[in-house]
Amino acid sequence: MNATIPIRESDLDFDNGTFDSSAFAARTLASWQNLAAALDHTLLEPGATREQVERLCAEAAHYRFACVLVHPVWVSTAVNFVAGASIPVGAVMGFPHGASLVSTLRQEAAALTRLGARELEMVLPVSQLKSGNHGAVENAVRAAAHVAHLQGALLTVTLDTGLLAMNEKLRAAEIAIQAGADFIKNSREPSTSGAIAADAALMRGVAGARCGIKASGGVTALEQVRALLEAGANRIGSSASVAIVRELGAE
Amino acid sequence: MNATIPIRESDLDFDNGTFDSSAFAARTLASWQNLAAALDHTLLEPGATREQVERLCAEAAHYRFACVLVHPVWVSTAVNFVAGASIPVGAVMGFPHGASLVSTLRQEAAALTRLGARELEMVLPVSQLKSGNHGAVENAVRAAAHVAHLQGALLTVTLDTGLLAMNEKLRAAEIAIQAGADFIKNSREPSTSGAIAADAALMRGVAGARCGIKASGGVTALEQVRALLEAGANRIGSSASVAIVRELGAE
Repeated sequence: MNATIPIRESDLDFDNGTFDSSAFAARTLASWQNLAAALDHTLLEPGATREQVERLCAEAAHYRFACVLVHPVWVSTAVNFVAGASIPVGAVMGFPHGASLVSTLRQEAAALTRLGARELEMVLPVSQLKSGNHGAVENAVRAAAHVAHLQGALLTVTLDTGLLAMNEKLRAAEIAIQAGADFIKNSREPSTSGAIAADAALMRGVAGARCGIKASGGVTALEQVRALLEAGANRIGSSASVAIVRELGAE
Repeated sequence: MNATIPIRESDLDFDNGTFDSSAFAARTLASWQNLAAALDHTLLEPGATREQVERLCAEAAHYRFACVLVHPVWVSTAVNFVAGASIPVGAVMGFPHGASLVSTLRQEAAALTRLGARELEMVLPVSQLKSGNHGAVENAVRAAAHVAHLQGALLTVTLDTGLLAMNEKLRAAEIAIQAGADFIKNSREPSTSGAIAADAALMRGVAGARCGIKASGGVTALEQVRALLEAGANRIGSSASVAIVRELGAE
């Protein structure tokens, strides 16, 4: 059971392939509960301890965030912790460089979903994109999407927009969507708020109503979230999710 | 065939378990050819292109570096390129966060060695070390070492010393060695020259003659290499290897 705030049919204009981000933003910001359901509660510090992972999970269960997003080594811990609260656990794969073999991505996706992960995040193979190996990029995404979907999990593809030129961003987004991504996401790197909102708008422009858009990178305040939702994101990744929902009245 | 400058029996004092780093440093610095054979020629930029990987390989073949170290997606390319020159290809696994599942490490090690990688570098699971899960840390290293050694490859374990307190560094080094590491390595992060040399000395202090010590992180000049060799390293990772051997007269 996914806590995520649902996109309504009225948000989508299938004829024009568009998504009404203003309506979605207004609904998401109408209550802290709605907002929480659009936030990934994220902990990807390499030195994060079990205690920190458990605190993350407790917070996710309390505020009912969209998911907890952790490293593979912590998936079992997180699944055990939040199973009762029906909060999905997400995990990153080949993070953050997107330079894994396709066979490794496949193994990792299968192993993580077997452990109970319901959302998988891979990084687009940026170096292959930049080398013009578009077929290799598509194969990698398609392989991960295939395994994820077989297991009923969602696949997010991080485009690592901070490393891409405009034409590469457009190409990367289109390849990821065609190959089966459920969400595309901007960058793994902290960036300026303006750059993240611009990337969210660009991704929504390419995607229309075809997939979800996640935005993340140094998002710590409600105003940033509002701007990203209005730009077209329907999921926000943050390690400051608790502070953000408190801005909207959560306790 | 590994080009690495060999450690001589006279460098090792097995009775006292020590390694004569002064003798090794003097021999390594006696010619640019010896020096090249102690340098990993490294390219781990996430956006590196095929063209850059091929240039890396051409340089490695020309100067006869100890190995070329690349991301998994470039192992096939590198193996094809340097096979004729008998330069070993190394690959990183679960880089840089050391947060992969053990089953993923096993798959990755097997797949990379099948593609021809002769050196594998994993990152110690730092978050598990910091959580006191020493058994999990040892299992991860042992699993990767087992697969690597079955295939005749070497395993380097990066301790990510930049994230560790002194007692954690000592513990990490001992666990990695006991679990079968052929080399232990300081950090994946650029650090100060002084900090890297101190970590090399610490690792050599723990290891004695039991394994090799790699040092890396912002090494761009011959003087840094000299300090690291004298501190106990017998392999240096750098993306500036060409400039370094040129300082010693290579063309």
